[in-house]
Amino acid sequence: MTDTVRSITLPKGFQAAGGCFGIKQSGSPDMALIVADADCAAAAVTTRSTAAAAPILISREHVADGCCRAIIVNSGNANAATGAQGLADARTMAQWVGEQLGCNADQVLVNSTGVIGHTLPMDKIRKGVNTLAGQLQAGARADADAATAIMTTDLRPKHAMGVFHLDGVPIHVGGIAKGSGMIAPNMGTMLGYITTDLPVTAPLVNQALTEAVNADASFNRISVDSDTSTSDMVAVLASGMAPVSPVTSVDSHGYRLLVEALTHVCRDLAWQIIRDGEGVNHVIDVQVTGAVDNDQALTFARSIADSPLVKTAVHGLDPNWGRIVMALGKTTLPLPLEQLVVSICDTVVFAEGRPTGFDAPMLSSAMDIERVPIRVDLHQGRGGCRFLGCDLSREYIAINADYHT
Amino acid sequence: MTDTVRSITLPKGFQAAGGCFGIKQSGSPDMALIVADADCAAAAVTTRSTAAAAPILISREHVADGCCRAIIVNSGNANAATGAQGLADARTMAQWVGEQLGCNADQVLVNSTGVIGHTLPMDKIRKGVNTLAGQLQAGARADADAATAIMTTDLRPKHAMGVFHLDGVPIHVGGIAKGSGMIAPNMGTMLGYITTDLPVTAPLVNQALTEAVNADASFNRISVDSDTSTSDMVAVLASGMAPVSPVTSVDSHGYRLLVEALTHVCRDLAWQIIRDGEGVNHVIDVQVTGAVDNDQALTFARSIADSPLVKTAVHGLDPNWGRIVMALGKTTLPLPLEQLVVSICDTVVFAEGRPTGFDAPMLSSAMDIERVPIRVDLHQGRGGCRFLGCDLSREYIAINADYHT
Repeated sequence: MTDTVRSITLPKGFQAAGGCFGIKQSGSPDMALIVADADCAAAAVTTRSTAAAAPILISREHVADGCCRAIIVNSGNANAATGAQGLADARTMAQWVGEQLGCNADQVLVNSTGVIGHTLPMDKIRKGVNTLAGQLQAGARADADAATAIMTTDLRPKHAMGVFHLDGVPIHVGGIAKGSGMIAPNMGTMLGYITTDLPVTAPLVNQALTEAVNADASFNRISVDSDTSTSDMVAVLASGMAPVSPVTSVDSHGYRLLVEALTHVCRDLAWQIIRDGEGVNHVIDVQVTGAVDNDQALTFARSIADSPLVKTAVHGLDPNWGRIVMALGKTTLPLPLEQLVVSICDTVVFAEGRPTGFDAPMLSSAMDIERVPIRVDLHQGRGGCRFLGCDLSREYIAINADYHT
Repeated sequence: MTDTVRSITLPKGFQAAGGCFGIKQSGSPDMALIVADADCAAAAVTTRSTAAAAPILISREHVADGCCRAIIVNSGNANAATGAQGLADARTMAQWVGEQLGCNADQVLVNSTGVIGHTLPMDKIRKGVNTLAGQLQAGARADADAATAIMTTDLRPKHAMGVFHLDGVPIHVGGIAKGSGMIAPNMGTMLGYITTDLPVTAPLVNQALTEAVNADASFNRISVDSDTSTSDMVAVLASGMAPVSPVTSVDSHGYRLLVEALTHVCRDLAWQIIRDGEGVNHVIDVQVTGAVDNDQALTFARSIADSPLVKTAVHGLDPNWGRIVMALGKTTLPLPLEQLVVSICDTVVFAEGRPTGFDAPMLSSAMDIERVPIRVDLHQGRGGCRFLGCDLSREYIAINADYHT
């Protein structure tokens, strides 16, 4: 562990801790606490699932006023589909953290990830809250402990950071995330926590986060398997501890820098999530240009990245442009085949309404890399999108079929 | 081969033939011709893909007037993404059939299925048309030859038939179909051809076909892998040779019987397509009831059937109700968790907002059958849908990743 891997406690005014409290049967770390020294401007984006888990519902309530102090997270149990008891337990988690920190329960965000349909072991949760509250610190150790404790079957902890300067003052942004995984097999869950020391109002944090998660190749532009978790959430806490004037306008230089830094951190974490996805051998990097607008570009890009036939073709290193054209066609959006240009690994495979005479064995060899770029130019307008997917492998089937809940 | 397996030449007024003409490298049968003795009232539904193949575009033109005499089909080459040459070749196929039969080219429907992006070997096609036109007959042999010649990697030919009585006269409906498959790996294609001897107007055939393909568990209610082919088409030819008064009104008894018989044949073929899907071990039979309306029921049912996590769970015989709830939630439609009842193989696994105390090992054993029923009751209204999907297996990955185009 070195000081070069820093994330959520890099910005001024944050501490964190993580540890093992027996929620996971494996004995791996399973609780993390992220705490600000004082009230933060806060924002969160949460799953669009209408089966959202209890902690998501409670966190939405608690972030509504744009003011938060802490985030408590457990892995090993999602507290999802647990009815009224689940809601009560999520509230109790926030309450206990508030008692330890001397703040209101509604200043605490709550997340849980892991198996579904089991109520939380609240005795273990209580011990975790009390213990972690006494171990809070800033530094690489705290970043690592927190990032590790939110993992389920992630192979690697995920950190990202960014620094920009405003009026000559360094402003820090740090983030951790977890991706798809399971304890017993369950839906993958994406969680991300980002901190910054920029002084900024809560509405601007919210707007900047929305921009950042919807940026090209960011959290809302990735897909491992097109399934949407009940527990997805990305939250930002801004401590305001950096000695600069507060950012209060979307037209300010500081706001644009914040959006850039948040986008950088979100993209970095999103890449790590896809790269560490279940059974992933190749990241599919889809870039659509020349669409009528960005919405259509996103629909085309997502259709390619989510197509099982495109995903298996990339897994097999097969430059199967026909499946890419199929995936574009199934959106039912207007598709100008004569203007369409498709390339794989920078080799044009389809243009002027027909396949080019590319060297298939050579292109197949070129596809044997970590990131397989697929580019589609529709030549219809200025809409574009970059979207990350991944190949579909036997390992994905094994992870999700061979172990029982 | 017995007379009990009958299909497209069972209705009066139809003949068919099929054979090998070297379009497939394997030497398997690759061309079929279905011909009516005289003009038929005809209708077709075709892929919604905006990358529709040339034969689909030509067939849409030719069926527009509701009058057809014949269907010419080749397998082994999809004539898709072949530009202007592909359109010309599809027109030429129709022209050649017209010359053989003494009818106009625009009375001939054309379909091609197989690899994408290669122009047709027109010398072989010409030989096929001429040869098949001289071999037309009615009977089990003709049905079998035609059903076999349209196969790609289908394991079994697919036949269905139905008989109903109108004014005491037996009316016959017969159909053949092919499902997902590939020569070199390519997108699966669904083709279906249905004949009947009912005298009926073309607009009514069209309306009845639309009702039939959108019925529960029919062609538009199945999904192997959520990918949509460039070449899907289902066509009906009605010869009018049965000695009854023509059906001319949607309010008639004859029309309702036609819809019922077409629906029966479509469902039968759809079941065979799913059962014979790539790498399929289990059919997932999703029944949604109690939705606000049928559209919402379809959205919920399709989301379950297409979810990779549900499909892998069924493959692993895992009664993972959490993934079913996830798939319902990701539709973003309102989801009343407290009223929701989910069952797998007739065992209730989720009710009153939480999992029931079902016996997971026993239920897992019960799932080891050909058809795994998943039932969802939302208790919100009278909307319902039955939708067939299938499990996602290593064999699917192998079929679609391990062979190169």
